[in-house]
Amino acid sequence: MEFTINQIAGMLKGEVRGNGGEKINMLAKIQDAKKGQIAFLSNPKYEQYIYTTLASAVIVKRDFQARKEITTALILVDDPYISFTLLLEEYHKVISFQKTGIEEPSFIGANVSVGNNIYRGAFSYIGNHVRIGDNVKIYPHVFVGDNVTIGNNTILHPNVKLYADTKIGNNCVIHSGTVIGSDGFGFAPQEDGTYKTIPQLGNVIVEDDVAIGANTVIDCATLFGDSTVVRQGVKLDNLIQVAHNVEIGKNTVIAAQTGISGSSKVGENNMIGGQVGIAGHLVIANNTGIGAQAGIGKSIKDEGQRIIGSPAFDVKEYFKAYAMFKRLPDINERLRELEKKIMQLEMTERQEVEGEE
Amino acid sequence: MEFTINQIAGMLKGEVRGNGGEKINMLAKIQDAKKGQIAFLSNPKYEQYIYTTLASAVIVKRDFQARKEITTALILVDDPYISFTLLLEEYHKVISFQKTGIEEPSFIGANVSVGNNIYRGAFSYIGNHVRIGDNVKIYPHVFVGDNVTIGNNTILHPNVKLYADTKIGNNCVIHSGTVIGSDGFGFAPQEDGTYKTIPQLGNVIVEDDVAIGANTVIDCATLFGDSTVVRQGVKLDNLIQVAHNVEIGKNTVIAAQTGISGSSKVGENNMIGGQVGIAGHLVIANNTGIGAQAGIGKSIKDEGQRIIGSPAFDVKEYFKAYAMFKRLPDINERLRELEKKIMQLEMTERQEVEGEE
Amino acid sequence: MEFTINQIAGMLKGEVRGNGGEKINMLAKIQDAKKGQIAFLSNPKYEQYIYTTLASAVIVKRDFQARKEITTALILVDDPYISFTLLLEEYHKVISFQKTGIEEPSFIGANVSVGNNIYRGAFSYIGNHVRIGDNVKIYPHVFVGDNVTIGNNTILHPNVKLYADTKIGNNCVIHSGTVIGSDGFGFAPQEDGTYKTIPQLGNVIVEDDVAIGANTVIDCATLFGDSTVVRQGVKLDNLIQVAHNVEIGKNTVIAAQTGISGSSKVGENNMIGGQVGIAGHLVIANNTGIGAQAGIGKSIKDEGQRIIGSPAFDVKEYFKAYAMFKRLPDINERLRELEKKIMQLEMTERQEVEGEE
Repeated sequence: MEFTINQIAGMLKGEVRGNGGEKINMLAKIQDAKKGQIAFLSNPKYEQYIYTTLASAVIVKRDFQARKEITTALILVDDPYISFTLLLEEYHKVISFQKTGIEEPSFIGANVSVGNNIYRGAFSYIGNHVRIGDNVKIYPHVFVGDNVTIGNNTILHPNVKLYADTKIGNNCVIHSGTVIGSDGFGFAPQEDGTYKTIPQLGNVIVEDDVAIGANTVIDCATLFGDSTVVRQGVKLDNLIQVAHNVEIGKNTVIAAQTGISGSSKVGENNMIGGQVGIAGHLVIANNTGIGAQAGIGKSIKDEGQRIIGSPAFDVKEYFKAYAMFKRLPDINERLRELEKKIMQLEMTERQEVEGEE
Repeated sequence: MEFTINQIAGMLKGEVRGNGGEKINMLAKIQDAKKGQIAFLSNPKYEQYIYTTLASAVIVKRDFQARKEITTALILVDDPYISFTLLLEEYHKVISFQKTGIEEPSFIGANVSVGNNIYRGAFSYIGNHVRIGDNVKIYPHVFVGDNVTIGNNTILHPNVKLYADTKIGNNCVIHSGTVIGSDGFGFAPQEDGTYKTIPQLGNVIVEDDVAIGANTVIDCATLFGDSTVVRQGVKLDNLIQVAHNVEIGKNTVIAAQTGISGSSKVGENNMIGGQVGIAGHLVIANNTGIGAQAGIGKSIKDEGQRIIGSPAFDVKEYFKAYAMFKRLPDINERLRELEKKIMQLEMTERQEVEGEE
Repeated sequence: MEFTINQIAGMLKGEVRGNGGEKINMLAKIQDAKKGQIAFLSNPKYEQYIYTTLASAVIVKRDFQARKEITTALILVDDPYISFTLLLEEYHKVISFQKTGIEEPSFIGANVSVGNNIYRGAFSYIGNHVRIGDNVKIYPHVFVGDNVTIGNNTILHPNVKLYADTKIGNNCVIHSGTVIGSDGFGFAPQEDGTYKTIPQLGNVIVEDDVAIGANTVIDCATLFGDSTVVRQGVKLDNLIQVAHNVEIGKNTVIAAQTGISGSSKVGENNMIGGQVGIAGHLVIANNTGIGAQAGIGKSIKDEGQRIIGSPAFDVKEYFKAYAMFKRLPDINERLRELEKKIMQLEMTERQEVEGEE
């Protein structure tokens, strides 16, 4: 990234005070910024730094009134924080897509079609009959198996592994070490105690706008023609297990180290915490919230529930029960006390009755 | 794969109706199949598709009676589903072992012995003094450290990492990103609060017929001459942790994200669910079933148990206790109620006694 | 490693009996040792082997008295076990640092500074503006992003991935498949149910003397200029998740498959078990011990606690409560019994009262 202060002010619809011709190549905090960098001032607590910062430019509110001399250029905007965030996003986009061209050695198979403006890092491997869209970034050590398709603007970070026949949509980001399309865990028990491998012949489909973290695994579907499916807008964190034939609904967000067993269908707009386990062949309704470390053993039919525990049930009920769980030794003591008292009452009663007789 | 319909019928001991000379290169579902593909019809619900399918051949029961004209060739067999499954297995084998030869650039060290019919993908790395059997498939980005041995018919998917001295048996399949032979987690606490690394000098032995999923880790044994051992026929899913000096008995099956701590010995024919944690230095009996998310803190001595919970105990007992756990606020309420009543009874009793005095 | 017996005796401050000029190239157990190898005898149970071992040398106590003829050379020391451990450590160091030089093909970017005596394995990738210290070992398939710095004596095992701007200290060991600097899991919910990606612009700092296992993930900090920090002497096991902006204090040890959510600060000298989950934005005091599978939902303020459970509380209290949890069906039965008895007592009481009236 290298823009002049004037160009940045144009992007932000802001007004420049000072030398707008200077070049900016980085964003920074106002207290750390150096020459060539741009910072922002939103919280008055940080105002002191604007008089000493080395930043070449600072984004400030339109009504900002300096109380001392300022040597840095200013960009006046309505909301400096939002403007800075916009710059961060632009910067991130530029950074993410700045790599381009082909580094050697890299490997490319037969009958591969490749879009414009792509990056293929050194030691990346692309198999046969692969189709790759525009602006795709394939970092070093990525493996793309035969017959894979990859949409436009998708980024595969170093060492992503796509088994044969995987389909990845547009605008996806997949982080290092993630494996997509590995064999599902299918073994048929034999009479002698051994297992026969069930061939895994399906694939994985990842739709548009999906983000997947690092070292996550998504297995392929079992049957030929079937797919494990990750729907549009899904966000998966690191170290997640997605088994064969699972489907994850649109815009569902799943935190790290969660596992979903074979053939389960997770609804749309779910929020699933970390280290959750979901058993196989379940259906989870839309808009379900599942707390960290929960275990889901049954389908969730009603939408909008918030559950936790293993097996999971209503969050509020769980925490009430858990509060009692902590007091169980006390509850047991109270029970023992009552048992004693009742025994005494019964004895007294018997004596009275006997006395009356 | 490319066989004629007649050749496939021969494999299945079936009879051909129609043009047996046409070539088949793929399997498909009857409703999706295209020219050059073969499908099957077992469930009568799908009979409608046999009259419209574009498949070049369909496998049907010997007694199948068409109610309309059929343009596709038929292969008549006793059980179409079993025949199709056999074809799937053959197809999977062909696919799995079809890669052959050496892609460049690849790296091979000194004193390496290599069997017949192997595949070494681009960017694969093979160290010194390595011994590789026949029909071994080493996909791109695989790392094989010094002194490793690999048996016949073993498949290492892209990016498998085998540290030095690892031994892998025959007919094993190891999926992408799995690491075998990394240092065990051994650190000796020092008086100043720091830790000294205990050198990890053992190795890992994986016996024959073992399947290992993606991004799993198996650490080497601590002492020189000792091994972490995965016995014959074991099936490990994705993202599993197997610590130093662990032994996993024959034909044991372990689901994703389970962790086994150092020096524990897991018996034969165990079925272990996902996200289970097994503490260190335990012995787990043969034929143990461990439910998902269980925590195992003690050795399991009796065979054939089914356990769950953290710490785990009998599955049925656990679910009975858990049903009560959910009702704990109610139990507490009942207890409070009783406490009140007893206080009243005691007061009444005291009044009576006082009254009698 | 190849030293004479005399040289080894010198290192151990021991005395040689027999031919000190013979060369040793390996360590072994006394019962397995072969020519050219060195073993030790500490436990008297193993004395029998010293008369038959093929080892070229055996380390024994200074006061060892042979009861039969011995053909192997002896090294007499104060404590044979400690001496052997010292040798193991030396051997491990030699093994770890023996690789040197550059294997081709490998990739190195522009403006890279590299120290002395480093190893760069085949297919390793080093980006632009990277600074690498002395004695650094970069195994095959390692990815080092732009602007990364790596201290002296650090070992990156095959396939470690360091995203741009990561800083690694001196004397670190990072195992295969570990990813450092991947994007934190940051997504801002939009009104239409979709999520907008929050750009992740910080980095990761790993200080000196840190060990990290295989397939672990450490995400970068969110804001530009911020860092996820792993302090000096920390030991992380395999398959651990460390989210954005986390800080792990000095000499803290964390077992496999544990996850720490965004912005949490873990204190110094913690011992954290496997499969633990720590929620976001928490502060964990120094010297905290957290049991396996615990879930931490609140900050831990007091130092020196030992906690377990989900949510976690005092270990002893947890196990007392859990013992009662197992007896809940029995507790419920006892409660029912009391309810019956009280109802009877109340009826008797009422009858008495009515009788008196």
